[in-house]
Amino acid sequence: MGNIEELTRAYAAALDNADPLAGFRSRFSSPDPELIYLDGNSLGRLPHGISARMQQAVEHEWGADLIRAWNKGWWEAPARIGEMIAPLLGAGPRQVIVSDQTSLNLFKLAAAALKLRPGRSRIITDTLNFPSDLYILQGIADILGGAHEIVRIGSVDGGIAPDLQALAAAIDERTALVTLSHVTFKSGYLYDMRAVTELAHRTGALTLWDLSHSVGVVPIELDACDVDFALGCTYKYLNGGPGSPAFLYVNTRLQPDALSPIWGWWGEAQPFSFELDYQPAPGVRRFLTGTAPVLSMIALEAALAPVVDAGLERIRQKSIALTQYAISLSEARLAPQGFSLGSPRDAERRGSHVSLRHPEGYRINRALIDELKVIPDFREPDNLRLGFAPLYVSFQDVWEGMDRLGRVVQERRFEKYPQQRMLVT
Amino acid sequence: MGNIEELTRAYAAALDNADPLAGFRSRFSSPDPELIYLDGNSLGRLPHGISARMQQAVEHEWGADLIRAWNKGWWEAPARIGEMIAPLLGAGPRQVIVSDQTSLNLFKLAAAALKLRPGRSRIITDTLNFPSDLYILQGIADILGGAHEIVRIGSVDGGIAPDLQALAAAIDERTALVTLSHVTFKSGYLYDMRAVTELAHRTGALTLWDLSHSVGVVPIELDACDVDFALGCTYKYLNGGPGSPAFLYVNTRLQPDALSPIWGWWGEAQPFSFELDYQPAPGVRRFLTGTAPVLSMIALEAALAPVVDAGLERIRQKSIALTQYAISLSEARLAPQGFSLGSPRDAERRGSHVSLRHPEGYRINRALIDELKVIPDFREPDNLRLGFAPLYVSFQDVWEGMDRLGRVVQERRFEKYPQQRMLVT
Repeated sequence: MGNIEELTRAYAAALDNADPLAGFRSRFSSPDPELIYLDGNSLGRLPHGISARMQQAVEHEWGADLIRAWNKGWWEAPARIGEMIAPLLGAGPRQVIVSDQTSLNLFKLAAAALKLRPGRSRIITDTLNFPSDLYILQGIADILGGAHEIVRIGSVDGGIAPDLQALAAAIDERTALVTLSHVTFKSGYLYDMRAVTELAHRTGALTLWDLSHSVGVVPIELDACDVDFALGCTYKYLNGGPGSPAFLYVNTRLQPDALSPIWGWWGEAQPFSFELDYQPAPGVRRFLTGTAPVLSMIALEAALAPVVDAGLERIRQKSIALTQYAISLSEARLAPQGFSLGSPRDAERRGSHVSLRHPEGYRINRALIDELKVIPDFREPDNLRLGFAPLYVSFQDVWEGMDRLGRVVQERRFEKYPQQRMLVT
Repeated sequence: MGNIEELTRAYAAALDNADPLAGFRSRFSSPDPELIYLDGNSLGRLPHGISARMQQAVEHEWGADLIRAWNKGWWEAPARIGEMIAPLLGAGPRQVIVSDQTSLNLFKLAAAALKLRPGRSRIITDTLNFPSDLYILQGIADILGGAHEIVRIGSVDGGIAPDLQALAAAIDERTALVTLSHVTFKSGYLYDMRAVTELAHRTGALTLWDLSHSVGVVPIELDACDVDFALGCTYKYLNGGPGSPAFLYVNTRLQPDALSPIWGWWGEAQPFSFELDYQPAPGVRRFLTGTAPVLSMIALEAALAPVVDAGLERIRQKSIALTQYAISLSEARLAPQGFSLGSPRDAERRGSHVSLRHPEGYRINRALIDELKVIPDFREPDNLRLGFAPLYVSFQDVWEGMDRLGRVVQERRFEKYPQQRMLVT
């Protein structure tokens, strides 16, 4: 770091004073001013206004309008909210809808992709991908009868980055689909979407990107990169609330031919004619399944405003500054206590969270939450994962969070916690 | 009907006075006292208390507990709410979970069933089933490569009842799965679950019942009938709110071998160990997929109390009385205006809604809602579908609803409405 001044709280305060996004912090609920919340990459904070919007949805729409509410906005919610998210993905209109959960959207899109490449037997992914995504792919391979092989590219730099050479070598004429997390969930590695998509297209393979850890915090250019399929969750940097519905993207050029394996009535051409034989709706709507969980959808819709208002360029700038500052502080103050960096040092290849590895990571995380009011999360085997959501995390939060983290280890506060994992870590 | 007294409003008032469930009406929101709501079979009314519970979930759990809320009840919600619903299904513990939507649960369970009967190629269903269920089956047949044939049994009595002789004849050693709606969505025909399940089992076929139109209003005996799989939605007679998550049931004896085709991380054996290869959780939990829409789940959980408190025997008794009364009134007063009964006359074979057919059904429905504040719904081509949710529909509602329905036709109020269908009918 080389700059002793950076280590002072006054320096952090000066960064906050110069932060053009500082005002957005007040748009989120923060009932405990002492809490440092560094897990917006798992569950985004509650934006103000959601509670009132839910009240209205419950009392007036459900309670008073009853089924009439379907014709007053409920039915159109998946497409309407999809269009709100589309600009955050660099996606033109009629390519994005909100539907189901991430895993289900992956199931639908990956199966659709494989059907579009019938002569090809390989699915390329990597070991840094969400295990949940790997599970879904394994299930698809199973239901398709075992003719597909899932190739998992390994990693380099101690699990921080994918082995790009191996990736390039693996993509060939046998490849039906390349599917990766845009930002990997543990190390926060940020893929070059354009380069990998081009690589896949050169051999005729399709691409499917999981944007769960990049949407809302990294500018994305799905159309410009000519991505085929994408999906992501909305409860991280989009602040949609616990388990808020996910989105999916189908490139316009694939829409006439891509077909979901789940022939849902919300994706049917004429759902209220009650014909007995399925006809897929035109466009991306055919990837809808059943009745959307309206209350969760409405919360999501109301939650999108802060990210949309702030704009991704400014968000990304602050995100890089926050993660860079966290890395600097951890190198100066935490490395001597046994922490090592589990994320890319190069900001261009890094999302908005930073993993710090420590042999006592699990117990440190518990003590940090319970005793010092800093909330990161933990990822096996030794990653303390710190998420920096630029709209409500300040530079002083970073300073304070790192300071408390240092104290947990220095004061051996973690030692009284069991190694036994809690239900959700 | 033969009893002129039944035609008077005073008679309806007397029935209400003698109704042991009359008190439950006050447990539901009813902001417009003039509104007669006969669509609880599509979207149940809002129980009191939901709004406050949602407020708490949003402000305190999401807003203040943040990710800590996962360990304080969110993670266990699918199993916990499943156990609340189980007694309504006649299901012992550890067989029911809440997950996704009806169509998705059908996809998961039907695919699991077919995998358990690898040598058999036929799926038996009927033309009275939800088209949405038929679509899902068609999609499964497609992804499985076309080796399965979907046999749709026809109907008798002008579409009111299934052709049971044809059903019995169709179920044979080629049959992998018999899947039907317990109560059919249009005519409200109530299947003899025990008899059909026995019929299927005699040939070694599996059964999968869609309980969407029976759960919460008809006593169900899944365990006693030895049903294999079942599912249903929760936003009709369970009053779970718009698009509230669905449930599914897997008989204990099938749980070791039944496998969902969607290998979701919430159904994984050790979801927070982040292993790269999927291992299904033991028990019914393996049919979970991704992160549940927590806000919609919490609303559902809070909504179940009235049905549980009232008890299904009393609910069923009143349901039969309500539908019987509606049929009597319609025969006396509406038949002369061109209405005919589109539902079973035999109460034992009838669920809790009654369809009245009229050539102008669509426009009558519109006029009834817009001008006379009675809300049924419409099902093509000519069914005015009247749902009688026993916990909040009174006998005077039935009388008044039928009276207003008669007026719409008598006064030709429907004539100014277009035949053009609205988005959601």
